[in-house]
Amino acid sequence: MRECDCSKKRKDRSPEEYKSLINRLNRISGQINGIKKMVEESAYCTDILIQVSAVNSALNSFNKALLSEHIRTCVADNIREGDDEIVEELVETLRKLMK
Amino acid sequence: MRECDCSKKRKDRSPEEYKSLINRLNRISGQINGIKKMVEESAYCTDILIQVSAVNSALNSFNKALLSEHIRTCVADNIREGDDEIVEELVETLRKLMK
Amino acid sequence: MRECDCSKKRKDRSPEEYKSLINRLNRISGQINGIKKMVEESAYCTDILIQVSAVNSALNSFNKALLSEHIRTCVADNIREGDDEIVEELVETLRKLMK
Amino acid sequence: MRECDCSKKRKDRSPEEYKSLINRLNRISGQINGIKKMVEESAYCTDILIQVSAVNSALNSFNKALLSEHIRTCVADNIREGDDEIVEELVETLRKLMK
Repeated sequence: MRECDCSKKRKDRSPEEYKSLINRLNRISGQINGIKKMVEESAYCTDILIQVSAVNSALNSFNKALLSEHIRTCVADNIREGDDEIVEELVETLRKLMK
Repeated sequence: MRECDCSKKRKDRSPEEYKSLINRLNRISGQINGIKKMVEESAYCTDILIQVSAVNSALNSFNKALLSEHIRTCVADNIREGDDEIVEELVETLRKLMK
Repeated sequence: MRECDCSKKRKDRSPEEYKSLINRLNRISGQINGIKKMVEESAYCTDILIQVSAVNSALNSFNKALLSEHIRTCVADNIREGDDEIVEELVETLRKLMK
Repeated sequence: MRECDCSKKRKDRSPEEYKSLINRLNRISGQINGIKKMVEESAYCTDILIQVSAVNSALNSFNKALLSEHIRTCVADNIREGDDEIVEELVETLRKLMK
């Protein structure tokens, strides 16, 4: 049993990064609500498919932004400080993302 | 201003399909909210990346379900009735989805 | 040993489609050989990664072209002739392609 | 004008990595030849589509293997030696791969 969550890794983000990530997620939430409304109003299939595809692109951009900052900060800092565990962690994460 | 939406194609879905699509979208909305909360609580980058990846998969499944029903109903019906425009429309949509 | 290939579905393609598909595959073969040469000459990792990504795009374009003709001919023809098995076959194929 | 290619980055790979990469590429070449033969023998569209999809997966695995070694060696080493240019280079490469 895990005794505490203290061991969980956290990341303090700059106010700019934080704001940008939250803004992106708010926009994506809005897009999902828009798609729900389309389904409720019996929108045509291909119109919905294209909107869903747009959300996938937005999530992909979100992930690129987050991953870029992760590499610039967490990864680079930890390697500099001699903590190489983060290398395998990054490799593993990329393997999951590049399915 | 668009003068009329009448020309817009619509699709009446079965109650089962409608419910299933809305349920999927509600779950995806919940996932996006969960990711927002993770960012607010300074969650670690790779934990967020994996969750975003899960939403991409869920949206992909949503699109597969919608596209399957589209082909089984709209596409098959229109071809049977001699309306071949839907063939090029499907080809065009798939080209956009398979980027 | 397979006793008979007669049951296998085949597709006679127009000379134009045939030539275009073979040309695409020849170009893709050339790209793979180019990547092999890069590895043999100790090319830098990111240079190779980008080339592999280009081959993925070329294969994707090949698949889009093949799928488009499949829908325009096999799928549309079979549905017109009342053979609806092809509908589920297309749905199944798209599910595999949209992983 | 670039005067010479000496400035080009190179990467000396271990015999194991080299052999594994070349083997993967040889197998992929064989798969492409197989697909060419399928087209020459008028194979059915969906059979070809699935094979192309398998090549995309194989190329993806190749890229994952190459990228993993790149991060473990080039990226980690350069950061340790204080050369941070490689960080932006990795970020840029990942942005191209995660299109």
